[in-house]
Amino acid sequence: MAEILDGIRFHAAELESFVGTLFTRMGAPAPTASAVARAVTAASARGFDTHGVRLVPYYASLVTGRRVNLAANLVFTRRAPAVGHLDADDGFGHIASFRAIDEAIAMAKETGVAVVAVGRSSHHGATGTYTHYAAEQGFAAIGMTNSPPIVVPHDGTTPFFGTNPLSFAMPVEGETPLLLDMATSSMPLNRVELRQAVGSVLPLGVAIDSTGAETTDPAAVVALLPLGGTAFGHKGAGLAAMVDVLCSVFTGMPHGNQLPRSAEAGIHDWPSVGHFFIVMNPAVFQALAAFNGGVTRFLDDLRSQPARDGATIMAPGDVEKGMARERAADGVPIDRLSWAKISALAEEFGCDVPVAVN
Amino acid sequence: MAEILDGIRFHAAELESFVGTLFTRMGAPAPTASAVARAVTAASARGFDTHGVRLVPYYASLVTGRRVNLAANLVFTRRAPAVGHLDADDGFGHIASFRAIDEAIAMAKETGVAVVAVGRSSHHGATGTYTHYAAEQGFAAIGMTNSPPIVVPHDGTTPFFGTNPLSFAMPVEGETPLLLDMATSSMPLNRVELRQAVGSVLPLGVAIDSTGAETTDPAAVVALLPLGGTAFGHKGAGLAAMVDVLCSVFTGMPHGNQLPRSAEAGIHDWPSVGHFFIVMNPAVFQALAAFNGGVTRFLDDLRSQPARDGATIMAPGDVEKGMARERAADGVPIDRLSWAKISALAEEFGCDVPVAVN
Repeated sequence: MAEILDGIRFHAAELESFVGTLFTRMGAPAPTASAVARAVTAASARGFDTHGVRLVPYYASLVTGRRVNLAANLVFTRRAPAVGHLDADDGFGHIASFRAIDEAIAMAKETGVAVVAVGRSSHHGATGTYTHYAAEQGFAAIGMTNSPPIVVPHDGTTPFFGTNPLSFAMPVEGETPLLLDMATSSMPLNRVELRQAVGSVLPLGVAIDSTGAETTDPAAVVALLPLGGTAFGHKGAGLAAMVDVLCSVFTGMPHGNQLPRSAEAGIHDWPSVGHFFIVMNPAVFQALAAFNGGVTRFLDDLRSQPARDGATIMAPGDVEKGMARERAADGVPIDRLSWAKISALAEEFGCDVPVAVN
Repeated sequence: MAEILDGIRFHAAELESFVGTLFTRMGAPAPTASAVARAVTAASARGFDTHGVRLVPYYASLVTGRRVNLAANLVFTRRAPAVGHLDADDGFGHIASFRAIDEAIAMAKETGVAVVAVGRSSHHGATGTYTHYAAEQGFAAIGMTNSPPIVVPHDGTTPFFGTNPLSFAMPVEGETPLLLDMATSSMPLNRVELRQAVGSVLPLGVAIDSTGAETTDPAAVVALLPLGGTAFGHKGAGLAAMVDVLCSVFTGMPHGNQLPRSAEAGIHDWPSVGHFFIVMNPAVFQALAAFNGGVTRFLDDLRSQPARDGATIMAPGDVEKGMARERAADGVPIDRLSWAKISALAEEFGCDVPVAVN
């Protein structure tokens, strides 16, 4: 995300505190405001700028447009010893997703593996925030969310799937968790928008224009192709379908193509997306010392593989680990356009903005 | 898999019976022989020719080369209410994988979701055979296996991952299960070999030659690229890493790059791959009627999406459903080269081969 690294930098803790205060001033209950602040700051701190603090104006627009229920009453129901349903009551997806992980961990401590399916939820930022949160507590997690349509089916011409991300995280002894967090399209829509903002082009195999042809011009994009492009997009579309079904039919929600498009959503057209989390306790699979040793051997072996000239072999999440170290030291950059919008919100709701890092 | 549709055709039931008899004559206990026969026939009947009956000579070579334990004693241990470990005792992966699904279903009936991690196993054919088997019984399943290295890491030059397939299946009311079964490379190695056999070329983004450059010549291939090719291969490699870790560290096995390459494996170098199955009971997530209705709405909506000229929108597994219908009517084709090898085995072990369909 080199696109926005020239932004204004802030200390993560101050950003998180500020965003929490901002949402509180907008009327969100403290736990909701904290969850949003924690999620967007964690994403930005790890380099997921597309799903980080730059989304604050979007989430604020949900509040001011009354398209999210600030009085949401989360209701968790354990439907089997290892399966629970969380009704997010049309509230923010962030608090629902942290809660889902908490409930899944509580069950997995008894049962070894557990699933929490979240219904009546909304955009939760980076799905990897929640699998990482589980991994920080010693659990492996698979996380998914569906989202409104922007990705065409394989061989299709019209958006049907959301970017439907799939995430996996697990603990690694002596370092931060292994983290995979990927859209099942080649690029998430936010990344295409960033390319447009900075005037760069797209690779082929990423998106189509209004004629259905592949395009490299971000401004011409009307839909994304599934991961695999025109030749192997049945794989990306297959993953998108798996994510969509688990996040809709298993959560009691409509599938992605029935979700209201943001532009169409009225005051009471809540987004109603679903999330799906599988949490596992590694210690019931193997003795923890053997497990940790195996993970370390896997990572050591992978990272020491020979690379193409000028490249380095990365394990899933290694780019983000590097980002997290750099940003812990130098501050978290926020692009200037987003920061201008956020500053305007701060003024409107009477919050002090944090002081930029030199 | 149009490559081998011009093979000799047989009725599936007769093929299965023949393959079972063949492995029995080779010394396999009846349950093991039946599991191999059932798995390869089911794969061929659904169009997974690369992982179907054509593998019989390979599996036979494991028996004659004593690289699989015919006296394997499968030991299942329930390690938590929803987690079990299956020690496959270096036997065939097919019987271990069917058993793993049986045990996972038994647990999921109590707990809603269950995982069985299989260690000390071997090549099990098409991973989708086992998730499909779970779905036939009303359960949703995610299945994975690791395998010896043939896929380079993203930006790498040397094989590290196996093709590490990921499968998902779930029941669909009134039709056969939805089935996703995909290598996390763009193509499985078997498909590259088939392209070579029929003299066709590969798309770019699939494989590299001995210089590390992308190649379209199947004969020049020394390694495969992860799904996503040179631009987005971090996603395919990320999925491959997830599959590898779940099938190795969670099962107590070495990770894929430590597995003996087939060509190197000696008599007692068992392959020692692992499998990983997650099984869910849809009926604990939603009332079954609502669940079934949601699945049908999803599939109806997806299948009716507009397609590019000359194309049809397929849901995961729809190609295979078409194949299965056609082959149930007209017989299952086996390519002539494989059938010649299989016929030679039949003669060697005194089995009658089935009569070809007209």
